[in-house]
Amino acid sequence: MAKPLNIAVAGLGTVGTGVVRLLAENAKVLERRCGRKLDVVAVSARDKTKDRGIDLAGVRWFDDPVNMAKAPGIDVVVELIGGSGGVARSVVETAIKAGRAVVTANKALLAHHGTELAMAAERKGVPLAFEAAVAGGIPIIKALREGLAGNRVRRVYGILNGTCNYILTEMRRTGRDFEEVLEEAQDKGYAEADPSFDVDGIDAAHKLAVLSAVAFGARVNFKAVHVEGIRHVTAMDIAFADELGFRIKLLGLAARTDAGIEQRVHPCLVRLGTPIAHVEGVFNAVVAEGDFVGQAVFQGRGAGQGPTASAVASDLVDIARGVRVPTFSVPAKALDRARPVPMTRHTGAYYIRLMVTDRPGVIADVTATFRDQNISLESMLQRARDPKEAVPVVLVTHETRESSMRRALAKIAALDTVQEPPRVIRIEEP
Amino acid sequence: MAKPLNIAVAGLGTVGTGVVRLLAENAKVLERRCGRKLDVVAVSARDKTKDRGIDLAGVRWFDDPVNMAKAPGIDVVVELIGGSGGVARSVVETAIKAGRAVVTANKALLAHHGTELAMAAERKGVPLAFEAAVAGGIPIIKALREGLAGNRVRRVYGILNGTCNYILTEMRRTGRDFEEVLEEAQDKGYAEADPSFDVDGIDAAHKLAVLSAVAFGARVNFKAVHVEGIRHVTAMDIAFADELGFRIKLLGLAARTDAGIEQRVHPCLVRLGTPIAHVEGVFNAVVAEGDFVGQAVFQGRGAGQGPTASAVASDLVDIARGVRVPTFSVPAKALDRARPVPMTRHTGAYYIRLMVTDRPGVIADVTATFRDQNISLESMLQRARDPKEAVPVVLVTHETRESSMRRALAKIAALDTVQEPPRVIRIEEP
Repeated sequence: MAKPLNIAVAGLGTVGTGVVRLLAENAKVLERRCGRKLDVVAVSARDKTKDRGIDLAGVRWFDDPVNMAKAPGIDVVVELIGGSGGVARSVVETAIKAGRAVVTANKALLAHHGTELAMAAERKGVPLAFEAAVAGGIPIIKALREGLAGNRVRRVYGILNGTCNYILTEMRRTGRDFEEVLEEAQDKGYAEADPSFDVDGIDAAHKLAVLSAVAFGARVNFKAVHVEGIRHVTAMDIAFADELGFRIKLLGLAARTDAGIEQRVHPCLVRLGTPIAHVEGVFNAVVAEGDFVGQAVFQGRGAGQGPTASAVASDLVDIARGVRVPTFSVPAKALDRARPVPMTRHTGAYYIRLMVTDRPGVIADVTATFRDQNISLESMLQRARDPKEAVPVVLVTHETRESSMRRALAKIAALDTVQEPPRVIRIEEP
Repeated sequence: MAKPLNIAVAGLGTVGTGVVRLLAENAKVLERRCGRKLDVVAVSARDKTKDRGIDLAGVRWFDDPVNMAKAPGIDVVVELIGGSGGVARSVVETAIKAGRAVVTANKALLAHHGTELAMAAERKGVPLAFEAAVAGGIPIIKALREGLAGNRVRRVYGILNGTCNYILTEMRRTGRDFEEVLEEAQDKGYAEADPSFDVDGIDAAHKLAVLSAVAFGARVNFKAVHVEGIRHVTAMDIAFADELGFRIKLLGLAARTDAGIEQRVHPCLVRLGTPIAHVEGVFNAVVAEGDFVGQAVFQGRGAGQGPTASAVASDLVDIARGVRVPTFSVPAKALDRARPVPMTRHTGAYYIRLMVTDRPGVIADVTATFRDQNISLESMLQRARDPKEAVPVVLVTHETRESSMRRALAKIAALDTVQEPPRVIRIEEP
């Protein structure tokens, strides 16, 4: 039996507590799988007196996680503090410098500093593992880095934020609007008091940046992600989408094209019958498309104590077993500096909803504008008729270029019969 | 740059050809990921003159794959011959004895000899990898052995045979019966001339035996798998299932209970809305339930050249990168000799269809028999009325024990108003 793996946990919130609990409850099965014990020997958190329902007897306590990261007798530092810089970053950098393996669930840190941290870790010869940073319990990092490593990945996309998926699911189920459902999600603890990180797409963008680095063997490039959140999705659009045979999902999408790497987070219409359309509530799902495997779909809980602890534990098992693979699937110094593809060059189909004055000639003006931009329409919905109020008109286009669409929409928005800014949601085909 | 990984491929059918093609087409990306080249240096197949559309210039040809398995200058032997014994087994045993790593797609071999082969490989210190043996391109072996390694897995189940799923999907889509759809599947190349291996559930049972060994860290126990195929599934039952809100799928299911390990392959009713119900055609899907991760779902192509080659390549990448993990997730000599749970002890809900004479008292007799066995009914469907012909009666039970069900069915079958043997399909709840 090899010597135990000595683990230090920085941060004892929901996830940190879960990791300690998992390592205790499943100690025996982990020992069988790894051929050695996985021992929590040190922890650090803000409040030493708080009862977290876990046994910390015999575990060293550190008030300062950075001191813990370089303390002797530690093999792995698990960083569960969070945040793109500050203490979390210091803990990870210090641990690497001290020659410790690092496991982190911190997507913000990796999105902003992933490439440099991977370089530092690989120079030092220590693993930097982050299964828990993307899609919670779904082992998608391992799947891309190892399970699908025979493939050139063309595209990877998915539902990466459970809060947004919960809100969109509830909006559809109940017909209520965003603000109301958000409040309820906050009451239930599914959304933060400051929901911006989730609902404005930033959290999904962090995860997407990490995911696409692994999928394409490219430097993490968070700044290149085009980000839109779900605040402007209305119950009306969800209902129209339903009628057209779609669900609205916040997706993170990354694709490698001849022009470079496209990364975008925004609400999408996805066709009913595709696997991703049926992923509801707080669940996450990731679809990876490889040149040999075709489409592979991974689905599970995207957050929460158990799933996230499961992901952290899988990294610890790898480290305990001596598994060593490149951080982002190829050695950090060989990562592609891929050109980002600007959003204006995106091509795809679009859903557009206009609120127009119900009078003759309106549709002619709108369709003429699309024609002038060479945009062809697949379908149009106009149901309500009311000469006194604005009525919705929904248009679905064939594939077109984002830049053409933007030009067309600017002209349409300026028509005096169009009473609100056009609502646009991109359609994503599988 | 480390020295190349020298690969020998035994068997150049669809999969073998695909592996050679993948290693050639994706050579550059594989080299980046592994830090070394993956070179096919030797092949063996029956027909040397056949044009397979792959370049074998400079590759050593062996008429005898067993000789190839022990030839000098080879690091990994990829066994793609197939079959539970014979040449395939000799190739794998010889390769291990000669200290070569082995990659195989051969579920039959592993189902019958997996434990002993793992022991031999681990004694010799060489990897024995088999991602391609279960669920084609879906990296489910890696997911269970590594990605979910922090969990105690309670249950793993899925659609493991694409041929059966294709047939069942087509039966539902077209309303046609088994024999007719099977013939069409044979014409299209989705089913073999001798379809028994697929449609009688044996192939799924091989895969399930391998899957449950990895999931539970237990010795492979193919003999303990309860196996039923899809020959007795009728278009009528598929239609009734539809009406009740279910799909019929051939599932392989393994669960760890207090009594031991339950392994079974049989048609199931699965509720619409569950991920597995919507997996159609030749696709496979596997659901794993862990104590921390909850439910994780993996979906993709279960067979075919590309997906299987992708799985073989992922094993080769692991070997090239020096990744070493226990064959069945714990060292072979420590694998559980778990007690198999006999099918009679299974508990679950049941769908039963009877063909009865339409006269008073029939239902009373049937329901009295269920009551005598303490089986309670959830619902009953009786639609057609015809005093001259047998009419179908469908019953759905609450959870009950298989042994009680069998006793009840024996009595019901003996009623003179029951004109055909009762059709029974188990209901699987998520």
